[in-house]
Amino acid sequence: MSKPTPISGFPEWAPPQRMIEQYVLDRIRRTFELYGFAPLETRAVEPLDQLLRKGETSKEVYLISRLQEEGPAATGEGTLGLHFDLTVPFARYVLENAGRLQFPFRRYQIQKVWRGERPQEGRYREFLQADIDIVDRDTLAPHHEAEIPLVIGDALAGLPIGNSDGGLPITIQVNNRKLLEGFYRGVGLTDPVAALRAVDKLDKIGPDRVTALLAETAGATDAQAKACLALAEIAAPDPSFADAVRALGVTDPLLDEGLAELVAVLENAVAHAPGLCVADLRIARGLDYYTGTVYETQLRGYERFGSISSGGRYDNLASDANARFPGVGISIGVTRLLGLLFGAEALTVSRSVPTCVLVALASEERRPESNRIADALRRRGIPTEVSPSAAKFGKQIRYAERRGIPYVWFPGADGVGDEVKDIRSGDQVAAAPDVWQPPTVDLWPTVG
Amino acid sequence: MSKPTPISGFPEWAPPQRMIEQYVLDRIRRTFELYGFAPLETRAVEPLDQLLRKGETSKEVYLISRLQEEGPAATGEGTLGLHFDLTVPFARYVLENAGRLQFPFRRYQIQKVWRGERPQEGRYREFLQADIDIVDRDTLAPHHEAEIPLVIGDALAGLPIGNSDGGLPITIQVNNRKLLEGFYRGVGLTDPVAALRAVDKLDKIGPDRVTALLAETAGATDAQAKACLALAEIAAPDPSFADAVRALGVTDPLLDEGLAELVAVLENAVAHAPGLCVADLRIARGLDYYTGTVYETQLRGYERFGSISSGGRYDNLASDANARFPGVGISIGVTRLLGLLFGAEALTVSRSVPTCVLVALASEERRPESNRIADALRRRGIPTEVSPSAAKFGKQIRYAERRGIPYVWFPGADGVGDEVKDIRSGDQVAAAPDVWQPPTVDLWPTVG
Repeated sequence: MSKPTPISGFPEWAPPQRMIEQYVLDRIRRTFELYGFAPLETRAVEPLDQLLRKGETSKEVYLISRLQEEGPAATGEGTLGLHFDLTVPFARYVLENAGRLQFPFRRYQIQKVWRGERPQEGRYREFLQADIDIVDRDTLAPHHEAEIPLVIGDALAGLPIGNSDGGLPITIQVNNRKLLEGFYRGVGLTDPVAALRAVDKLDKIGPDRVTALLAETAGATDAQAKACLALAEIAAPDPSFADAVRALGVTDPLLDEGLAELVAVLENAVAHAPGLCVADLRIARGLDYYTGTVYETQLRGYERFGSISSGGRYDNLASDANARFPGVGISIGVTRLLGLLFGAEALTVSRSVPTCVLVALASEERRPESNRIADALRRRGIPTEVSPSAAKFGKQIRYAERRGIPYVWFPGADGVGDEVKDIRSGDQVAAAPDVWQPPTVDLWPTVG
Repeated sequence: MSKPTPISGFPEWAPPQRMIEQYVLDRIRRTFELYGFAPLETRAVEPLDQLLRKGETSKEVYLISRLQEEGPAATGEGTLGLHFDLTVPFARYVLENAGRLQFPFRRYQIQKVWRGERPQEGRYREFLQADIDIVDRDTLAPHHEAEIPLVIGDALAGLPIGNSDGGLPITIQVNNRKLLEGFYRGVGLTDPVAALRAVDKLDKIGPDRVTALLAETAGATDAQAKACLALAEIAAPDPSFADAVRALGVTDPLLDEGLAELVAVLENAVAHAPGLCVADLRIARGLDYYTGTVYETQLRGYERFGSISSGGRYDNLASDANARFPGVGISIGVTRLLGLLFGAEALTVSRSVPTCVLVALASEERRPESNRIADALRRRGIPTEVSPSAAKFGKQIRYAERRGIPYVWFPGADGVGDEVKDIRSGDQVAAAPDVWQPPTVDLWPTVG
């Protein structure tokens, strides 16, 4: 066969990068669990009609079909597609299992998703997301919207990335859909969703073209467009943003509700994680289904690459004729985050294999002896390999060196006891497999 | 929308089951790493020609296509399908990245795979596998074949399943393709692969029909068929099986080679994990690509459900015109294993959420105080939630009870300090969030 090649948009990390990814995922998972989120995985496929409920991304769905059947419709359950996010499957899961769940239901979900986009630079077609959501039955208290960014702050805070001053590596930008819609209504616009979509393009096309778009799609006068742009310029790391909004002189009951909710999010953020959140009134999120607080997240130093963690409150995603399950959630784009950090070589791992000790082999006949030593070390939680061959010791040491394995163990013979060599320093000391312990920093690979 | 329903063959575990699955996966992963296997994930899709290299399963491949393109061929990289195992993608990965890998290369890989089978009872179409493989360049020393079953034994040994006597929960059945092929040649059969396929059906169709099949497909005489069946009946938990083979009086150089290799596997197993392995000469494995040791694994008490972990040595899977990368590996069918254990209610988890402590809420106004207590507990690694509402304390305690959360924390007020209640015993004691520690057994959910 010919040499295989990569497929655009389907990244494959090398083992050392995968070790870093696991380290990041372990931290994320542990943080989610510290906040009481329960784990869930949903199947990779959903019926196509479920996937298309979120309109905009329909062109990105991958359909699946059995090789020996005709066309994608023949799977027996109607057409199936791969999920393109974890929110739509979760909403389906909640509706399907509502009778068996305890509400409010807090769950996290860390899985691959797929988007059938045309291949282009920096776009992934397969990528890993880490989501948390809280849904309740009938009503969801707004304090949950204030809790979500703190979880993300904690999950990513300890990563050895971002500011060299040890500060937070991320900024979470927060806004509120009610605030935006209420404001647009308050200035007299009758299609606030069209206005929201126009303002959402501010970063991409600039204020002049947004003004034109507001006139064209939302029927905005110059004064109305000016007010919308003035709102979009407000940003503050604390509840003071509310004064700036009120200074614009617009009043509307929905605006007041949104303002109160966003103030509560900022108050909570200032109390628990100063500097983590910024109220940024230009953030709108493209998706139709958000109805309250919305979140985007900048990785400091990588702002130009866009948000690495986004989400918001949705009141109508998990609803049917009988019940309504409003929710709030956020998704960390793990592959996107790691892609940025790997590209900048911002994260490294101390070795390319888990192995801490390589047990050397004097001769193939003496392999059982080396195996016994490895057994004893592993039983004590020390990752250990036995040398694959009884080559000269110099060659065995190079086997360890090439992988970053820090210790080589030499089984004793002829009245001489076992010895272990730190191949970085060259220090070699007597050791017994049932008592020797490496320094904690050497036991497992470390990420820095 | 109408209430969604499950899709046959795509299991979704409830959160408590997912907690058990994560516990099992964490144990498997740690064991793999203790043996020095490095982590790898490959993309979910492979070019169709790669997937069809393993003939037999071609009918099970799921193809993917973009919703708005015509037919599966239009993805830009030829037809893509979802991988149906982790061995074929790994072989492709090794060929693609050979220049960047250190050999022998030990990797583990824990991922979902998909098989487009027709829906039927007990068949999964999406399931999780946990694989280890060792590949080397040009030649692979046979001692690696003896190491593989010990890793699986360790990975599954500690699970609280199987024998109530604390014995090993699994038996790994081992055989060797060279032994079988050499024996069939030695009795004069010219198509040993046909003979192997016939004998592989012994458990399903019985000795009489295997005899007929041997005659029909491999041209075996009655005496030859009898010899093949006599070989298939040999089984022993130690190297003594070799005497039984030799007693059949067949000689062949390939048989001798296979015997020596299988004896070495059994010797190693007896030395390191007595009772784990059985040489069982009826095990053949259906797949064409195995060329040496083969493995199947029975979960004790669930033997009728078939193997939960299978694999073997393959010499020609990862090879191209320039290089050859012989390998040996084994795959744990995690979904299959858990499906059996969940069906028998053989594994339970101590609560349905990670949360150890629920911080009660005297009034919504005092939420910041409860949040601060939760913060302090989480910083000390104690999974904590704050009550979702300031309902009566009885109702807040029931919130904890329904989820199995063992502790409810009552913030102090009016000169009375904080107290924490073990809601199982009713004991309530004074506590401070920066020093109180739950018993270790309560800190995280436990699986038993």
